[in-house]
Amino acid sequence: MFEYRVRVRYADIDRMNVAYHSRYFEWFEAARTELLRRTGLDYKTVEQQGIMMPVIEAHCRYMRPVHYDEMLQIRTFIKSAGRTRLRIEYGVYGEEDTRKRADGYTVHCFLTSGGQVVRAPDPLYDILRTDQK
Amino acid sequence: MFEYRVRVRYADIDRMNVAYHSRYFEWFEAARTELLRRTGLDYKTVEQQGIMMPVIEAHCRYMRPVHYDEMLQIRTFIKSAGRTRLRIEYGVYGEEDTRKRADGYTVHCFLTSGGQVVRAPDPLYDILRTDQK
Amino acid sequence: MFEYRVRVRYADIDRMNVAYHSRYFEWFEAARTELLRRTGLDYKTVEQQGIMMPVIEAHCRYMRPVHYDEMLQIRTFIKSAGRTRLRIEYGVYGEEDTRKRADGYTVHCFLTSGGQVVRAPDPLYDILRTDQK
Amino acid sequence: MFEYRVRVRYADIDRMNVAYHSRYFEWFEAARTELLRRTGLDYKTVEQQGIMMPVIEAHCRYMRPVHYDEMLQIRTFIKSAGRTRLRIEYGVYGEEDTRKRADGYTVHCFLTSGGQVVRAPDPLYDILRTDQK
Repeated sequence: MFEYRVRVRYADIDRMNVAYHSRYFEWFEAARTELLRRTGLDYKTVEQQGIMMPVIEAHCRYMRPVHYDEMLQIRTFIKSAGRTRLRIEYGVYGEEDTRKRADGYTVHCFLTSGGQVVRAPDPLYDILRTDQK
Repeated sequence: MFEYRVRVRYADIDRMNVAYHSRYFEWFEAARTELLRRTGLDYKTVEQQGIMMPVIEAHCRYMRPVHYDEMLQIRTFIKSAGRTRLRIEYGVYGEEDTRKRADGYTVHCFLTSGGQVVRAPDPLYDILRTDQK
Repeated sequence: MFEYRVRVRYADIDRMNVAYHSRYFEWFEAARTELLRRTGLDYKTVEQQGIMMPVIEAHCRYMRPVHYDEMLQIRTFIKSAGRTRLRIEYGVYGEEDTRKRADGYTVHCFLTSGGQVVRAPDPLYDILRTDQK
Repeated sequence: MFEYRVRVRYADIDRMNVAYHSRYFEWFEAARTELLRRTGLDYKTVEQQGIMMPVIEAHCRYMRPVHYDEMLQIRTFIKSAGRTRLRIEYGVYGEEDTRKRADGYTVHCFLTSGGQVVRAPDPLYDILRTDQK
């Protein structure tokens, strides 16, 4: 599991004075990128080698609000890594108020740069598989 | 059912040359606001009367990519309206390429402006209930 | 001059209960795209023909706040169209409270898809020039 | 001068494969918040004490593109701190490719939480003034 830290910006906050719900998916993306980097997968390099991993499903449950200027921890891990699907899960916690604020997941497929669905190539698959929880 | 039309902006597009996945939730929000307006619920007025309807769950499945400058239709309807939960569903279609691109839902609860969970008051409940599909 | 209409979304609003300042630049972009479309320039097509018009300077003055759910008019026109620079100006007005809320401009250059700075090709230049105020 | 570090996210990138121009203003905001924190001004606390410092002018010049996954440094300093206006300036640099990518400024006024323009109160003014370059 990887913990990504992110500070809540003014731009993230909405009229209810809490973080706007779609912003969580940007934090998930940033957390996912760092998780992959720690496993040895630089996502930029993966794309340069011709494999894209678009989000094909995204989900979030919002339990307690997140406020301006809070430092958050996004706990992130690979739930399952198959040849055609990758599922990553996320938990959102505050650093001071450590209660769980939200959890969610994203599901990814593998595409060529031309947009064709493919099976994950061996090196990519092996790394993702090893890191699976 | 209500059809909300939205043009895909440059700002919505990501590095894969398709709309970034979190943007769909902003479209859902805009579509939901217009849906409520057509049923007689001006969401701004609802909030001024002391009831907020925050998103407590959000989900989207992405089937086919959405491209820059496309005109989209977000087909939106109230799936279920209870005293404590409201579920709204969305389908995303292109106006030219009319295939379904994505679908999703949001679940909302009812809060006082002070942040207390409440049951939907009668007038609000009745309108939402009537419009339920 | 072209008037682009846009409804202020929940996602646009920040903690001060007014539209977040960077969002104006997204509205400017949407307004600019429609302005160009009316002059006969479909920006997507321009890009497909190998010319990009990136923003090289952006400016906005915020005079009066913009609120949730307001319908805005973005009055947009080409201030000057040269071979190497295009300057577009914007004024933001409410439809109900019609006072000016903000004004701004963006400056654009012309790039090949490979990222080389170029002079605007004749057809593009002629159209932009004609529409200059 | 304060250096704020930020990683460029996928969500920041647009169709030209470079960071979208309005995103710079979100980075400026995050950098400004940290700059103020280092001078002893927690902006959240400033707001809780009844003073808001909204952006009344924003400007950015884009010199060289910023790419996905780059680590940026936003060099930030208070250019001038008066009783009625605060001007903060920003320079954007890459950590690997250290050339300047952009620079900009924001101008702020001082408002009560009720929205009235006020002169900066002494403690706030003194801190900002001391930190002025």
